[in-house]
Amino acid sequence: MPSLEQINAMSPREFVAALGGLFEHSPWVAEGAWPARPFRSDADLHAKMVAVMRGAPFERALALLRAHPELAGRAMVNKSLTAESTNEQTRSGLTQCTPEEFERLQQLNAAYNGKFGWPFILAVKQLDRPAIIHTFAERLEQSAAEEFAACLANIETITRWRLDDLLDK
Amino acid sequence: MPSLEQINAMSPREFVAALGGLFEHSPWVAEGAWPARPFRSDADLHAKMVAVMRGAPFERALALLRAHPELAGRAMVNKSLTAESTNEQTRSGLTQCTPEEFERLQQLNAAYNGKFGWPFILAVKQLDRPAIIHTFAERLEQSAAEEFAACLANIETITRWRLDDLLDK
Repeated sequence: MPSLEQINAMSPREFVAALGGLFEHSPWVAEGAWPARPFRSDADLHAKMVAVMRGAPFERALALLRAHPELAGRAMVNKSLTAESTNEQTRSGLTQCTPEEFERLQQLNAAYNGKFGWPFILAVKQLDRPAIIHTFAERLEQSAAEEFAACLANIETITRWRLDDLLDK
Repeated sequence: MPSLEQINAMSPREFVAALGGLFEHSPWVAEGAWPARPFRSDADLHAKMVAVMRGAPFERALALLRAHPELAGRAMVNKSLTAESTNEQTRSGLTQCTPEEFERLQQLNAAYNGKFGWPFILAVKQLDRPAIIHTFAERLEQSAAEEFAACLANIETITRWRLDDLLDK
């Protein structure tokens, strides 16, 4: 649990080692935020990482979206999720789906990926399975422009929670 | 018809006045390319403007897409298109649609906008109406990630033609 003072004293390599996992498989976000030190608060650190994400060109932001696992998808079943995603999908109960829920999520994943070309991204921690499935079905009806923005907004929430966990808040 | 030498000697204000219209209602592309002078060729000038477009964050690139008119849409009927778009839609015969073609294009525009949240963008100059409608229907089936990339690629083609027209090639 590094303190903010310790984070502000880190070299780029140390900083990326400590914070590079907040944005799923995308250490370039931490790399891009390091020059914005010193961070005045956890919120400031997070805001500066989010600014890197939001300033990224479309193709790079798309790669970040695509670095996320499907909900209750193959990576969860295979246990090949990142530690952070395992924690999030477990806490939301996605590892305890009924066969019907599991089947429905696979249908939604396939339809969403077919329409948009990236996986559905939702900050699931405080949602139960029916709420997740309901939100998923609703968001599938949105336009791509709305969904791209919604995924970035959800990544913002997910990474804020991950930062709080990292700093043991 | 400015020469490349004249373009390389322009102030930022003159440069944006001369080239700001190449990217539809988006003078920020020319503004962003000016510091990359001197341009070695027309192709180099175009490539540097395209690099600005491709480096733009998603929201800014989305605004560029949304600055484009629909094909055979309200702006064409109202004659409120830019000079460049009027020229392109006229040369492709879109101003001479049959009632059936016009109706079909309105359906495609509505379906495309509903799915993606930005207008269909196609370099129409060398296509006739049946080819445009065929391509439109095919692209409507693509994923959002594919379509966003396809729109940027088509803007690349459109702006190259516009630059050639401007330089009277």
